[in-house]
Amino acid sequence: MARIAVDAMGGDHAPDEVVRGAAQVSMETDHHLLLVGEPARIEAILASAPHNSRRIEIIPAAQSISMEEDPKAAVEGKPDASINVAVRIVKEGQADVLVSAGSTGAGILACAKRFSRAPGVSRAALASVYPTEIRRGEKDDPFSLILDVGATVNVTGRDLVSFAVMGSVYASIISRNARPKVALLSNGTEELKGLPEIKEAHQTLKNGHLINFTGNIEGVDIPRGTADVVVCGGFHGNLVVKMLEGIGEAAMRLAFYAYKKHILWKLGLLALRSGIKQLKQITDWEQYGGAPLIGFDHLMIKAHGRSRALAVKNAIKVAGKTVHGRLIEKIATGMAEFGELGS
Amino acid sequence: MARIAVDAMGGDHAPDEVVRGAAQVSMETDHHLLLVGEPARIEAILASAPHNSRRIEIIPAAQSISMEEDPKAAVEGKPDASINVAVRIVKEGQADVLVSAGSTGAGILACAKRFSRAPGVSRAALASVYPTEIRRGEKDDPFSLILDVGATVNVTGRDLVSFAVMGSVYASIISRNARPKVALLSNGTEELKGLPEIKEAHQTLKNGHLINFTGNIEGVDIPRGTADVVVCGGFHGNLVVKMLEGIGEAAMRLAFYAYKKHILWKLGLLALRSGIKQLKQITDWEQYGGAPLIGFDHLMIKAHGRSRALAVKNAIKVAGKTVHGRLIEKIATGMAEFGELGS
Repeated sequence: MARIAVDAMGGDHAPDEVVRGAAQVSMETDHHLLLVGEPARIEAILASAPHNSRRIEIIPAAQSISMEEDPKAAVEGKPDASINVAVRIVKEGQADVLVSAGSTGAGILACAKRFSRAPGVSRAALASVYPTEIRRGEKDDPFSLILDVGATVNVTGRDLVSFAVMGSVYASIISRNARPKVALLSNGTEELKGLPEIKEAHQTLKNGHLINFTGNIEGVDIPRGTADVVVCGGFHGNLVVKMLEGIGEAAMRLAFYAYKKHILWKLGLLALRSGIKQLKQITDWEQYGGAPLIGFDHLMIKAHGRSRALAVKNAIKVAGKTVHGRLIEKIATGMAEFGELGS
Repeated sequence: MARIAVDAMGGDHAPDEVVRGAAQVSMETDHHLLLVGEPARIEAILASAPHNSRRIEIIPAAQSISMEEDPKAAVEGKPDASINVAVRIVKEGQADVLVSAGSTGAGILACAKRFSRAPGVSRAALASVYPTEIRRGEKDDPFSLILDVGATVNVTGRDLVSFAVMGSVYASIISRNARPKVALLSNGTEELKGLPEIKEAHQTLKNGHLINFTGNIEGVDIPRGTADVVVCGGFHGNLVVKMLEGIGEAAMRLAFYAYKKHILWKLGLLALRSGIKQLKQITDWEQYGGAPLIGFDHLMIKAHGRSRALAVKNAIKVAGKTVHGRLIEKIATGMAEFGELGS
């Protein structure tokens, strides 16, 4: 049983879909769920959503932060915003972990303000998952993890080592992949290539034993899925995940263009439709549930802003797994191997 | 009429396909072509390739550099390598521009060793072209230009300004797009976002008038083709072009998987085949001919290592256009606007 704080007011479809997702979890697991938000609205949604009331507790929060607000001003100016309250109850020990589909910037800032860094970790990172060709782990998982994708801009070699350890521990718990392959993103596979911080991290990681460091990868390896965990600074991770998003969009528009253009192509796309649907299902982020803000003494699982109940449910389950898998403890063990960095 | 030095010994299919490409150009244009390499081999190929002998001259070069050699050691250790000789005859005024399908590293180093920087330019860049959704210019060109993709690793704000001017001038000559849209690649469209060098370049470029600077773009805009010229440091450009390459490969393998898997999907792909072929043709790099190493007082057009005669022919024609379009002169004019940088 994990105690999970859920930011009921964060996300494009909050509080309805968030509360519905939590209600489903209460029927399927033994987690204790602390829904943070406006009690009257949460209760009204629960009234029509099947749930196990012994596993749900409502924690009042009078304010909320929208996607459009400036994250810094909102986190500072709204102490009773649901994300701030959720972070606070985790910090005070009332919950083990938190889940939010709200503003990413506000979530990161709220955590950074109240949480301490995990032992040995130099900097926190936001991770993201993306679909690849290669499947991995016991569950035949089609996702690779990439971090950092936006909690940092410039990083040091020591930061990259922290990201490598954290990503490895997270992937081993979530994908049931005991020895995930961890690689540094660079502009060539040679160990002496890349930016100074990448070369420095490479030298440190290759002498470690706890994580399965496989060296440098380059851009071409990202869609392939050569690595299970891709380690990079936030500027590079942001570029990668946004390019992947753009390419998905472009392919869709291209298919639509072909569809309109030519009767034979139209038939072709129709015939492929079930295949495309099946593929989409395998690689759908809704199935994955969210990505962690990792590196503090407590974890936040950031669900996609567009999350509906299914995605929220999966994000909460992921959060539960990180508690059962003793994520924070294992990160400390992993970092201890590179002790001289963590001092 | 332009005088174009062609590295006849560089490329996976050299000298055969390179000489054949040049032979074709001699029949279609009035350029004077200086084929640099082993005279006996070049003559043997010309013997069976229709060409205009008044437009072809052979410049002997006793050595050549393969793709596998260490570029630095080879450029230093083989003064009579075809790439070194081609660079030398351009520097000495015997030719206006050079074309090579050989080792990219060796080409960059050979140029860097002998050429001077173009007036006002702080650093040279290697550009690359990639297909996008949006079409542009008089010729309905489906390509965007991105630079730098590998002549640099770390860059300064001033370097990025140089790249913006050079990319804009090149695109306006090659794509017949009078005012190409030039953007800086960043991690957000806001002008105050990004690495320090990007913010600095943004402030300089927005005060310029000669180039059509449209601000920052992010990863999602790359496959869309929002910008005609994407400006970034070499580490980022390398990541972008390699990811695009990897995604192309992954899509091909996925199609093959679908093809084997399901009879209906098989029919679908068959029906789409002509569409895919047509698309491939529109976006084929062989049609484009090559990408420039730009920023020195002379230009090199780097054709793809896998180039066959068609790609070589197009690369030579591109080189001719840069001479007719007075590329180097226009770069100097463009940089003069940011005069305080060029000092």
